Amino acid sequence: MSKKAIILLSGGLDSITVLALAQQQGFSCYTLSFDYGQKHAAELIAAAKISKKYQVVAHKIISLGINAISGSALTDADIQVPTNNETTGIPVTYVPARNTIFLSFALGWAEVLGAQDIFIGVNAVDYSGYPDCRPEFIQAFQTMANLATKTAVEGKKIQLHTPLIQLTKAEIIQQGLALAVDYSATVSCYLADDNGHACGLCDACRLRSLGFQQAYQADPTLYQ
Amino acid sequence: MSKKAIILLSGGLDSITVLALAQQQGFSCYTLSFDYGQKHAAELIAAAKISKKYQVVAHKIISLGINAISGSALTDADIQVPTNNETTGIPVTYVPARNTIFLSFALGWAEVLGAQDIFIGVNAVDYSGYPDCRPEFIQAFQTMANLATKTAVEGKKIQLHTPLIQLTKAEIIQQGLALAVDYSATVSCYLADDNGHACGLCDACRLRSLGFQQAYQADPTLYQ
Repeated sequence: MSKKAIILLSGGLDSITVLALAQQQGFSCYTLSFDYGQKHAAELIAAAKISKKYQVVAHKIISLGINAISGSALTDADIQVPTNNETTGIPVTYVPARNTIFLSFALGWAEVLGAQDIFIGVNAVDYSGYPDCRPEFIQAFQTMANLATKTAVEGKKIQLHTPLIQLTKAEIIQQGLALAVDYSATVSCYLADDNGHACGLCDACRLRSLGFQQAYQADPTLYQ
Repeated sequence: MSKKAIILLSGGLDSITVLALAQQQGFSCYTLSFDYGQKHAAELIAAAKISKKYQVVAHKIISLGINAISGSALTDADIQVPTNNETTGIPVTYVPARNTIFLSFALGWAEVLGAQDIFIGVNAVDYSGYPDCRPEFIQAFQTMANLATKTAVEGKKIQLHTPLIQLTKAEIIQQGLALAVDYSATVSCYLADDNGHACGLCDACRLRSLGFQQAYQADPTLYQ
């Protein structure tokens, strides 16, 4: 029987690539998405379609009241998603403690399933402004996870997999295309409309578009 | 201006004591509770009343779809809360990764508020079967928290406070009574009815009742 793995699946370019990699490595994949009041809810529809296409064992969408604590352009109506490419430092699209929260739920589900492997598509290259995308954060979360759970107390170690952490967007795209990933099914844009069509202006759109250019690949993104 | 602190407030005996201690230490208190589909939802009503009585700056109840991943007697209709005092090892009332999830949200809110202090009423003595109540877990979470957030990257350290971690239930009650805590306002029972009245049989009731006995104090709990 193949080992079970939880894959955090936003419905974007990175997470579909991670899912394809986990399947290639022979894991039985369980995908996990979050409805946290993000403006670009089209990514959840994409996550559901991707989960179906990859015939994952189960896909769960967990509803979180993150907007109750607010603080990000991705969830707060009063903070605009920037479209002027002028961000320096930690961007306003940073959601406080988002990856910590997402990984905590993945940890809980892993424990329920008896899974010891969690995949997350964090990237320290393009998103260097997000503290919770750095290798030292991932390492510290894994150490904590191995003290937090029944699974760990029973001696079965939790392993976090971050196959994209040191790749450029172009390298991620090349890896995905080698695994026949269909990027037209993904939504990266922070301002995607209900059909999943992209704005072409936000940071996520810029990074994605540049990635396809640098990978010398046609960009299958549908724009508004 | 006094320092802000997030207090995880379940509405039970331990967390009200923690709130009283944090106020005594001069913190501006922000209380955080979770609606995670727990059977004993009366504790949320207690948490709201306690927050009002202690005139906290803000009280938030965050809704979490933890029941989507299931796995605990506290949230799953198919798993009975034990009332026979026969638990050994990790109890079925253990909610997978619960404290990890709760602390992650506290971390996110702390970041939004610019708070650096988080209080949690974990206890390693009475709840020795819960892996996420142990000092080594708390220490590992704090290390991770200080890599996870913008606050930490900017050099402002997050501090987790666990003032009850090495106390017996009787000692907790004695500390609380010294601070004039009204324990009749709290709900500990895993099977509390809608009025917050306790069953007297579950592990939480047994521990609480024994605590009052061992502290030589009258038990103000209202039973069903």
